[in-house]
Amino acid sequence: MKTHTDYLYLNTKNKKEIVNITGEVAEIVGKSGVKEGFVHVSAMHITAAIFINDEEPGIKRDFLEWAEKLAPFNPNYHHHQTGESNGDAHLKSILFHHEVTIPITKGKLDFGPWQQVFYGEFDGQRKKRVVVKVLGE
Amino acid sequence: MKTHTDYLYLNTKNKKEIVNITGEVAEIVGKSGVKEGFVHVSAMHITAAIFINDEEPGIKRDFLEWAEKLAPFNPNYHHHQTGESNGDAHLKSILFHHEVTIPITKGKLDFGPWQQVFYGEFDGQRKKRVVVKVLGE
Amino acid sequence: MKTHTDYLYLNTKNKKEIVNITGEVAEIVGKSGVKEGFVHVSAMHITAAIFINDEEPGIKRDFLEWAEKLAPFNPNYHHHQTGESNGDAHLKSILFHHEVTIPITKGKLDFGPWQQVFYGEFDGQRKKRVVVKVLGE
Repeated sequence: MKTHTDYLYLNTKNKKEIVNITGEVAEIVGKSGVKEGFVHVSAMHITAAIFINDEEPGIKRDFLEWAEKLAPFNPNYHHHQTGESNGDAHLKSILFHHEVTIPITKGKLDFGPWQQVFYGEFDGQRKKRVVVKVLGE
Repeated sequence: MKTHTDYLYLNTKNKKEIVNITGEVAEIVGKSGVKEGFVHVSAMHITAAIFINDEEPGIKRDFLEWAEKLAPFNPNYHHHQTGESNGDAHLKSILFHHEVTIPITKGKLDFGPWQQVFYGEFDGQRKKRVVVKVLGE
Repeated sequence: MKTHTDYLYLNTKNKKEIVNITGEVAEIVGKSGVKEGFVHVSAMHITAAIFINDEEPGIKRDFLEWAEKLAPFNPNYHHHQTGESNGDAHLKSILFHHEVTIPITKGKLDFGPWQQVFYGEFDGQRKKRVVVKVLGE
C-alpha cells in the first residue's frame, strides 16, 4: 500500500469562481505511482467546494447563478452576528459538497467522457488550500 | 491490499428515473473477496447521481419532484447555447451528488436497516455507466 | 494495511439538531493507529447527514433554517402514504449528504483551520448510529 499527500493553493481573482483542477489532480496521481486506488480531493475551507461536472463555460455560469438562487447572499444570516458577511458561501459549500473521491484505474483517473474536477470558490480573493490524497498500490 | 474494479451499465426507460443498484454493488463486493475496506460507486456522467436512501416508492417520487422544484427544467440555461437542453440534469446531479463510498465490514455493505444505494438518472433513455471500485483486504 | 471500524450512537434532545462529532472521530483515528489513510464517517440512517463546516452557533442555526427552506416539512409528500411524516428529513439528508471522507496525515485529521465534522439530525429523539471506518497504514 502506498499513500501520497499533496496540496493545491488557489487565490481566485473573483469572489465567486469555478476553477478546473483536473490537470493538477491527474499530475499528483502520476507522481504518486499509484496504479489502482483512490484519490481524494477536499477543500480545506468551509466556503468552498470540490465537485465533478462538465468543462463548459455556460454550465459554469449556470452553476454560479443556481448557487445564488438556492443559497443567496443575505445580510440577515445569524452567522453575520460574528462580524462575518459570508453566510451564503457556507451554504453554497454544503450545496456543492466540499469533497470528491475519484477511482484510479491503470494509473489514470477513472472518469467518464465528460467528467472534470472543479474547485468552487464562494468567498475568494484570498489564499485557499485543497488537500489531494492518493491511496492504493 | 486488494482492489477490484467493475462497471454497471444502465439505460433507463424514462428520462428521469431512480434505480436501486444495491444488489449489483453487493455482488461486486462479494466477487472482490474484500472483507474490510471501502466500495466506491460513482456515476461516470454529469447528468446522473449516486445516493443512499430508502427503497420506498413514495419517497422516490418525492425525490424526483423535489429535484424538479430545486433544479427545474428551464429553456434559458446558458448551457443551452451549446445546443444542449439538459442544463437541469447537470444541476440535479450536483444536488444529489454523483458518488458514494460505502464501508465494507465482515464482507458486507456496512449499512443501517433502511439504507440502499440508488442510481439517479436525470437525462436517460441512453446507455450510461457507473464505476464500482473496491479497496481493502 | 490496517482497518478499524467503530460506531457512534446519538440520541438528540431535539427533532432537528446539529452535533459536533470531531472529538469522537479524532479519538477513533487515534485508536486505529493509522498514520496515513482515510477515515470515512457515514450516518446509517436515511434522515440524517454528516457534513463538514464551522463550529459557530449562528451558522448552525442558519443551516437548520436553510434546510427547512429548501426541504420544508409538508404533509403531502408521497412518502407519507406509508404512515410516516418525515419526508422532509429524507430530503434534508440528501441536501447535506450522509457521509464524508477525511484524509489522515501524520496521524491527524488533515483539516483546514476551521473545519469540523458534524452529525445533522433531521428526525431525532431516538437512537441513531454512525459508522466510522479507518483504512491506511
